[in-house]
Amino acid sequence: MSNTQVLLKSKPEGNPSTDHFEVIMADMPVAGEGEILCKTLYLSLDPYMRGQISGRHISGSIHPGDLMRGETVSEVVESNSDEFNPGDLVMHHGGWQAYSVSKPEDVERVDARLDPLSLALGIMGMPGLTAYAGVYYLAELKSTDVVLVSAASGAVGSMVGQYALNMGCRVIGIAGSDDKCSWLRDVAGFHGTINYKSEDLAAAIARECPDGIDFYFDNVGGDMLDTAMWQLAIGARVVLCGLMAQYNTDVMPPGPNPASIIKARATVRGLVVYDFFNKKQEFLDKTIPLLADDKIKYREDVSEGLEQAPEAFARLMRGKNFGKTIIKVS
Amino acid sequence: MSNTQVLLKSKPEGNPSTDHFEVIMADMPVAGEGEILCKTLYLSLDPYMRGQISGRHISGSIHPGDLMRGETVSEVVESNSDEFNPGDLVMHHGGWQAYSVSKPEDVERVDARLDPLSLALGIMGMPGLTAYAGVYYLAELKSTDVVLVSAASGAVGSMVGQYALNMGCRVIGIAGSDDKCSWLRDVAGFHGTINYKSEDLAAAIARECPDGIDFYFDNVGGDMLDTAMWQLAIGARVVLCGLMAQYNTDVMPPGPNPASIIKARATVRGLVVYDFFNKKQEFLDKTIPLLADDKIKYREDVSEGLEQAPEAFARLMRGKNFGKTIIKVS
Repeated sequence: MSNTQVLLKSKPEGNPSTDHFEVIMADMPVAGEGEILCKTLYLSLDPYMRGQISGRHISGSIHPGDLMRGETVSEVVESNSDEFNPGDLVMHHGGWQAYSVSKPEDVERVDARLDPLSLALGIMGMPGLTAYAGVYYLAELKSTDVVLVSAASGAVGSMVGQYALNMGCRVIGIAGSDDKCSWLRDVAGFHGTINYKSEDLAAAIARECPDGIDFYFDNVGGDMLDTAMWQLAIGARVVLCGLMAQYNTDVMPPGPNPASIIKARATVRGLVVYDFFNKKQEFLDKTIPLLADDKIKYREDVSEGLEQAPEAFARLMRGKNFGKTIIKVS
Repeated sequence: MSNTQVLLKSKPEGNPSTDHFEVIMADMPVAGEGEILCKTLYLSLDPYMRGQISGRHISGSIHPGDLMRGETVSEVVESNSDEFNPGDLVMHHGGWQAYSVSKPEDVERVDARLDPLSLALGIMGMPGLTAYAGVYYLAELKSTDVVLVSAASGAVGSMVGQYALNMGCRVIGIAGSDDKCSWLRDVAGFHGTINYKSEDLAAAIARECPDGIDFYFDNVGGDMLDTAMWQLAIGARVVLCGLMAQYNTDVMPPGPNPASIIKARATVRGLVVYDFFNKKQEFLDKTIPLLADDKIKYREDVSEGLEQAPEAFARLMRGKNFGKTIIKVS
């Protein structure tokens, strides 16, 4: 038996393609003393991985020849630990491979209330926790706020918007296709949407937020951030969470002119989800009932088979995904 | 009798010079019903006036032919109001002129504890209140914080630094000459200084703040802000207050890349002093005793005569002032 793995083959200059990755058959890993052998069920693909490839992400770098890293939902198939038994379901950083070995302290059990299990990697996992931290810990939201979210149909953006909707806010989403915009309005219940690929962004923000933006959640950076910053309402709050605009470039684009922040007396905060891992249970306990009550909608963009991971990641980087990008591995 | 006035003659492209202003003799203004006639004693010159000339300041625009605006300390010389008597000392927006007419509701009495009276325009006036608001309402300062201040020898910067010193912080000031740096260290008691004209700024910040900046108070924007932002400590706070780097240009320089904010989980806030006018008395009551106890040092850069205002303003815009720029008018 062997272990399918996806390695980084070479560093892409701009958008990655399948050529930058290599699928290999490696030896099966062996669980040592106290360790567990895990079979990957689902792998999460996320934009921050592009930052790891560039060597610019807070979590460290991936070099050519390295196994691609990533969060997984796995089934324990062999256990040398008293804490786990074969058949247990866990979440951990298994990486882009079919089997992995973990230490018990590096995995957590998947909440049994989740169905499908892949939700543990999306709206009920790190992306959902990111949205939760942004809305409940950094946004200082009031029910009268006008909320703008970029990359709004993604796992993080869609949850930011829906938490805000549940708080009574007027919520506007920015997305890159009419399909995504329709889903945001008709399914997720956003009050308005902006297709940044077909509309003039500044004019569209002015149309949807005529009194300015009270809270802006940014997953993108670059020009989109700059454009939004000039339409902040007095006292606005901004959470900077993602940098989609610069993951695929070696040149750091400039940020918004500080005058935009002064003019609005805005408060701008940087969000790193790692700081909120201790809120995971609180997040789940708050979010699972919303999901059960059908107050939260989600989309998953599922590809089957590890071999599809490079192509799916390339699509994600081009904004061609629609919903949380998941690889169904086994 | 006539009234000396300084008008804007033409809009400067870059740094203003005396050619952009015109000194004229106008008719004496006349106090109408309920109004007071004020003789200007001191006029304050401030960087924000360059923004008014550009038409980009929050307080409105000044056009060629207009009287230059500005805060003044004046003596009431004629009163048609029950509230004021000749000889009363007031602070108001008298502008760049020898005499002005005001309504009682537009002036405030100068605190009798101030000596010299010009302090009401500097460390005990709007610039001091700006610093107070930044430090006490926006900075969330702890005594263990490392504080960096730009334009540190100016009225705002020197007060930010000294409030922080009084709270026990380690305080580093950025200024544009060795004389200013010496004053900050030897007189004001700053722990360290950086002469941005003669030192490499990034290296100097790393030297003075080896564990990063916990609080950065920015009066400048532009490259200086960008450089400082990459050396923020985790959890840093930044107050954006002034835009010295862009007052004299029509092109808005870019701001710091959002990655610098995310990396530090920083909180960046815009400060407009107008929002804190209701804290004026609190600010005075807290600051006057510090001044009396010799715990606050100040520098004034005083020129005599309204005719000197254009030249003094041009020097201020080139960073050649040293301390709060004041015109002694009468």
